[in-house]
Amino acid sequence: MRHSKLLAPTLREAPAEAQVASHVFLTRAGFIRKLAAGIYSLLPLGLRVVHKIERIVREELDRAGAQEVLLPMLHPAELWQESERWQKYGPELLRVKDRKGADFAVSPTAEEAIVDLVRRDVKSFRQLPLNLYQIQDKFRDEMRPRAGLMRGREFIMKDAYSFHTDEADAHREYQNMYDAYARIFKRCGLEFRAVEADTGAIGGNKSHEFQVLADSGEDAIVACDQCDYAANVEKAELLPEGQPAATAARALEEIHTPGVGVIEDVVRLLGEPIERFVKTLILVADGKLVAALLRGDRDLNVVKLKAALGATELELAGDAAVSAATKAKVGFAGPQGLAMPVYADPEVAALSDGITGANKTDHHVRGFHLGRDCASAKVLDLRTAAAGDRCARCAGGHYRAFRGIEVGHVFFLGTKYSAPMKCTFLDAGGKEQVMPMGCYGIGITRIAAAAIEQNHDADGIIWPLPIAPFHVAIVAAGKEAEVLATAEELYRALGAAGIEVLFDDRDERPGVKFKDADLIGIPLRVTVGKKGMAEGIVELKQRRGGVVVKVPIAEAVARVRALCDEGLARA
Amino acid sequence: MRHSKLLAPTLREAPAEAQVASHVFLTRAGFIRKLAAGIYSLLPLGLRVVHKIERIVREELDRAGAQEVLLPMLHPAELWQESERWQKYGPELLRVKDRKGADFAVSPTAEEAIVDLVRRDVKSFRQLPLNLYQIQDKFRDEMRPRAGLMRGREFIMKDAYSFHTDEADAHREYQNMYDAYARIFKRCGLEFRAVEADTGAIGGNKSHEFQVLADSGEDAIVACDQCDYAANVEKAELLPEGQPAATAARALEEIHTPGVGVIEDVVRLLGEPIERFVKTLILVADGKLVAALLRGDRDLNVVKLKAALGATELELAGDAAVSAATKAKVGFAGPQGLAMPVYADPEVAALSDGITGANKTDHHVRGFHLGRDCASAKVLDLRTAAAGDRCARCAGGHYRAFRGIEVGHVFFLGTKYSAPMKCTFLDAGGKEQVMPMGCYGIGITRIAAAAIEQNHDADGIIWPLPIAPFHVAIVAAGKEAEVLATAEELYRALGAAGIEVLFDDRDERPGVKFKDADLIGIPLRVTVGKKGMAEGIVELKQRRGGVVVKVPIAEAVARVRALCDEGLARA
Repeated sequence: MRHSKLLAPTLREAPAEAQVASHVFLTRAGFIRKLAAGIYSLLPLGLRVVHKIERIVREELDRAGAQEVLLPMLHPAELWQESERWQKYGPELLRVKDRKGADFAVSPTAEEAIVDLVRRDVKSFRQLPLNLYQIQDKFRDEMRPRAGLMRGREFIMKDAYSFHTDEADAHREYQNMYDAYARIFKRCGLEFRAVEADTGAIGGNKSHEFQVLADSGEDAIVACDQCDYAANVEKAELLPEGQPAATAARALEEIHTPGVGVIEDVVRLLGEPIERFVKTLILVADGKLVAALLRGDRDLNVVKLKAALGATELELAGDAAVSAATKAKVGFAGPQGLAMPVYADPEVAALSDGITGANKTDHHVRGFHLGRDCASAKVLDLRTAAAGDRCARCAGGHYRAFRGIEVGHVFFLGTKYSAPMKCTFLDAGGKEQVMPMGCYGIGITRIAAAAIEQNHDADGIIWPLPIAPFHVAIVAAGKEAEVLATAEELYRALGAAGIEVLFDDRDERPGVKFKDADLIGIPLRVTVGKKGMAEGIVELKQRRGGVVVKVPIAEAVARVRALCDEGLARA
Repeated sequence: MRHSKLLAPTLREAPAEAQVASHVFLTRAGFIRKLAAGIYSLLPLGLRVVHKIERIVREELDRAGAQEVLLPMLHPAELWQESERWQKYGPELLRVKDRKGADFAVSPTAEEAIVDLVRRDVKSFRQLPLNLYQIQDKFRDEMRPRAGLMRGREFIMKDAYSFHTDEADAHREYQNMYDAYARIFKRCGLEFRAVEADTGAIGGNKSHEFQVLADSGEDAIVACDQCDYAANVEKAELLPEGQPAATAARALEEIHTPGVGVIEDVVRLLGEPIERFVKTLILVADGKLVAALLRGDRDLNVVKLKAALGATELELAGDAAVSAATKAKVGFAGPQGLAMPVYADPEVAALSDGITGANKTDHHVRGFHLGRDCASAKVLDLRTAAAGDRCARCAGGHYRAFRGIEVGHVFFLGTKYSAPMKCTFLDAGGKEQVMPMGCYGIGITRIAAAAIEQNHDADGIIWPLPIAPFHVAIVAAGKEAEVLATAEELYRALGAAGIEVLFDDRDERPGVKFKDADLIGIPLRVTVGKKGMAEGIVELKQRRGGVVVKVPIAEAVARVRALCDEGLARA
């Protein structure tokens, strides 16, 4: 492709709302343009990246035995009513009425539509197992779309759904998809971890997220430094730390802490280590107050507490409710005498002389001992895993902490959708059975963003070669006939060698061309200049690392080819 | 692909609503399934065909210098308000409100969105010309969706938009796209004609439709038997036939035609040739009554009359209005003394002794002569072209009539969108100019349906090889180990030769397998049977024509490869 013909408008400045690298560079380098909040057009460079990701996804899913289909984007409300998600999904589900007043959902996911397809056409165990996938625009009406392609409202997703004769076969396919996903993200050239995860709104009872590691990731994950265990911190298991303290070290004593209700400030005021403090969180679980106790330096794991309570909704109580329950301003809550169920983390039970709120404004207590001062508390694992925690799955391992961007998610669904929608088959004995299911998603456009979050520098994007919009940029640094002729010939020869070339033939200064090639993030750059012509060489630069070597003109194609092969093979 | 693993549920009966071949066979052969009225899921076979069409489209458009982009499916209402189509488009435009109450259109076409993209990023004549295309789901909320993929509500379309420095360059690109379209439809293996067409709601002042010829087509077209001229009958030009009759042959005489108001019945009653009759049509043009006179055997061309009147809306008047204007029941209208503008076709002016209505219930008149009996009538070309008419573009040619299915349409738009939306650039002299535009559409899913309308028989589809879901079906007709082993080996060897094979390895009778292969429409079929094994041969059948030949097993791959190469090269 000739750069002079390509619509790739580069910008010096990103819009103010662009806060993360992928949003900044996708916009500045001319890969995407915003049409509305969270709704983006893909320009030629952006679409090239998306097509490369799609191709890798298709190849690996086909190889894994899945079949591609394409469902409509508008799904009749009736199907969503069968699964009850029409009522439950909330405002992220965009609802629309057609000209005759019929209700439709703009598809954010397709469990209902695919189950409807399968229940009509698949009747016998002989037609199972079946794994159907599609690559399609999806819409989720996020309240706060942000970060460009990272969390848009309209986005391209690969969604797959599998149907089975029994749960064992569904688990086999789960592993099959897990393996395919690992191949896909490896082939995309990404550093990632598969982590155990909560199933959230999709449901089911087993799931793994595929997380691209990047400091800007929204998700916190931990991974053992010795075994394979890795999990989203929401889901990460912990070993109980410490034994319950048998006796209290001293009597409970009230201390005056005027105007100091934030734990860091109390720690500073009292000069005691934060590990001696007990955080008392007042929450509302399905409309009822509960209290959760954690060591001062720990964070509550909402998913674990929700699961322990069997609650659907769990959130922090409002200030008024906290004050009413503790008879004090917010910041001075303690578990002593609270008229609500209290749940304590084992680390809290291990303290014989803790510090917590006094349920009295401007006061705390020291000498807190759970067994004595809040005997009704139930002890259970409540905290969020963090770096340094002991691994729950192996002896001797410890967690390391990472930030990740979720690009894929596999779910074991069981019969969550197939039972209410009566997706059944006749087994070998002629008996009607419900099909267990799995579902499997990949955020295609999000992969493009995640790749940039993981691979960029101050000058722009550093695309992994397998998903780069072009493999190599040719820059003609000069207007001499010999320079232009050599550049043209290299453009022809590299193209003939099956290499994707962006030939910068624009009437611009070399500096502008170099800056644009770096910004766009093309993995290799060949510079043809007047001085090099005299020496019979061109310059070959690798975007990652910035190494520049001089290469005899006659060897340029072979050298580029070798680097491309290496980049594709590594992935 | 092994048939036993493929989701291709075949049906003995199509649903009652399926009236045309493509709807019947796409459903019966398991290519599509209906999700809602005019909204279809593509099953694996259907998507394979669509992907093949898309690939041909991409290759030819890229070769023609267009660049692929992908716009969102939801477009903000503000853009459609700028072009005034938010108000004008009618209920086919599906409108939706997001969670914050903002209005969006579900894109039925993308002129507004692409103009918005270009006006923001293209500022200089140096960036032009530019031709951007996308392949995307579109939605048009048709009142009466019908015929499966022929006229659905949700469908896949390739839409392209070009931007230029001047009209001459826009016309050059129009021709460039015209040529690319011709290559695309040829490569798809379709018999088609490019015909001059009306521009309709898209606007602009020059357009061609690409029509796949098929008896079931919705469009009537004529093509000269001597020159290249071809046009939709709506647009087809005609030479004036006959000279105005200088004088009347006789006096106007009333005749009694009791209860006979339909022209065919009057012809039968009077025993006169239909060419002597004058049809008097009363219409409403933008709210005002007009009359149109045509020879009894001719049809009004609404587009021509609309253009002559400069009218936006033109339709037949209701019965009450006709009766009021003619003071007679419907069926007895004549132009004599009508209090409205009258337009007459030259063939009517040529009659010296015509027959028409008497403006009196149960009566007609004979002896009609336009110059005497309706002197105020304006004579102009009003009729629809038909087979046998003289060609308007060459001497000696005559029109032949065809039915067609519109699969592509190219438009010269001029500044219809770019002027109101202020899509401008600075020319070489630094002056701001509006960009002339073209737009170019292809109905991807409709091509699949049109191909079937043109290529089928009683047993099913006969896919043109370039867009067939598979090139060859292998049928193992028998369960003997040798039969199965030979079929497996052929499956492997044909796949290794780059041929797309559907291997029917199902535990079914040969008759079922043959029927399904014919229904699905796979161009070639290789049958491996016990008897053939003994002779060392397999049977090779061509779906089109049904020719069966015996081929030595060792030569089967080469023979299939040769037929595939021929099928792809012919296209």
